[in-house]
Amino acid sequence: MTDRCAAFRALHHAARPLLLPNAWDHASAAALAAEGHPAIGTTSLGVAAASGKPDGAAATRGENLVLARLVARLPVLLSVDVEAGFSDDPGAVAAYVAELAALGVVGVNVEDGRTDGTLAEPGVTVAKVAAIKAAVPELFVNARTDAWWLGVPDPLEQALRRTRAYRDAGADGIFVPGAPDVATIRLLVGEIAAPLNVLYTPGGPDLDELGRLGVARVSTGSLLFRVALAAVTGTVDAIRSGAALAVEPPSYAQVQRLTAAGGR
Amino acid sequence: MTDRCAAFRALHHAARPLLLPNAWDHASAAALAAEGHPAIGTTSLGVAAASGKPDGAAATRGENLVLARLVARLPVLLSVDVEAGFSDDPGAVAAYVAELAALGVVGVNVEDGRTDGTLAEPGVTVAKVAAIKAAVPELFVNARTDAWWLGVPDPLEQALRRTRAYRDAGADGIFVPGAPDVATIRLLVGEIAAPLNVLYTPGGPDLDELGRLGVARVSTGSLLFRVALAAVTGTVDAIRSGAALAVEPPSYAQVQRLTAAGGR
Repeated sequence: MTDRCAAFRALHHAARPLLLPNAWDHASAAALAAEGHPAIGTTSLGVAAASGKPDGAAATRGENLVLARLVARLPVLLSVDVEAGFSDDPGAVAAYVAELAALGVVGVNVEDGRTDGTLAEPGVTVAKVAAIKAAVPELFVNARTDAWWLGVPDPLEQALRRTRAYRDAGADGIFVPGAPDVATIRLLVGEIAAPLNVLYTPGGPDLDELGRLGVARVSTGSLLFRVALAAVTGTVDAIRSGAALAVEPPSYAQVQRLTAAGGR
Repeated sequence: MTDRCAAFRALHHAARPLLLPNAWDHASAAALAAEGHPAIGTTSLGVAAASGKPDGAAATRGENLVLARLVARLPVLLSVDVEAGFSDDPGAVAAYVAELAALGVVGVNVEDGRTDGTLAEPGVTVAKVAAIKAAVPELFVNARTDAWWLGVPDPLEQALRRTRAYRDAGADGIFVPGAPDVATIRLLVGEIAAPLNVLYTPGGPDLDELGRLGVARVSTGSLLFRVALAAVTGTVDAIRSGAALAVEPPSYAQVQRLTAAGGR
């Protein structure tokens, strides 16, 4: 477990940013592992929507445990998006993350966005980060601020103040989704004394450019899940209208092998 | 329930074949319902792989019940692929299908392929079809023969003999995946006194051509699930290599609305 956490940590200090694609079920995780990704994250939107629940509503506590149990069979490191930890009690958050760690999970994302769409007081997230690090010191805690996503006034000031506090509380990495431009990302890299994680955005800076800016980790968030849904509806539309299919899918046997590999 | 079953039955007697796309979780079902499909099926490969289980191994009895409960909240009719019914006991198969029907399911696929890759004796499937029709007469039973898929000698003779027996036992529709060509499909339509269901095959006859041949229902099987996986790995490959994305995904808010709609 400690070795796996160390391996995950080392991926944040490589020549190129860690591209962390986000899965939501066993099949998506197995397909990404089969592509050779050493580590994957989860997408809370995907995990929630796959099971008919809203995202950001602290509703997928159990679904994450099920997914962690399944991914433990795959040759890939897993970091789980636990939203705000499914509790306001730091001890309960830490106990939940320890439960994930016992299943082989090497990292978590903990966010300061609340289910009502406001930011939690910084001290609330600070206490959660500190509690997790005390309970499972080797696990990589990626603390996320939703300052831009939730559209607060002065997002840059909020992001800097909060992420410094999370870092001081022991966060191993800092995740700032929604930073508006390259200049802001550069500033964040300079100001934050921890590996910076940003979200990949179609049409935005690519992996190489993010690497040159000093970004340590690039996640795909809900993008892969949303692309999968688009492929589903696009394909059935094409069939309905007699058009040719745009994607070459894996065969039935290839998909079955993903599961067989997972069942080792 | 009876009205919903009647509505599903009527879709097999329309001017154009019923295009029945196959979902595997709440999100895929909700996305297809939002596209206006009046009815959807399930893909046993997708249901199995999403939860880390092999397909065709009678392993997803519980997963189907969970999915049926979720899809019951959506404005769409659902037919469930129950493989061979998860039992060799016709009474147990009928009780399981009745459980699905109580959740709002309007149809099932029952197949004669066995978990060991051989075809069951025709009488085994006949007894299952008859038991289901006795237990839930209004539910649409689509009896599937795997004569071509399992590569038996004389698949046409096997398919005709079996599907006649299933029809005589009360099957409402007949599903013959893997029929090798248009001539065979035409022959099956002529010989089988029930709505014929075939599998959509990329590069094969399109929906209009299948309609002209007299096919009543066209399902997508595992295709949409496999296309979704291809979109996932293709997108992350594109991100890794700095290429542009091929698919325009739905927004976060659009995906959240799918679940909110499902939660009515």
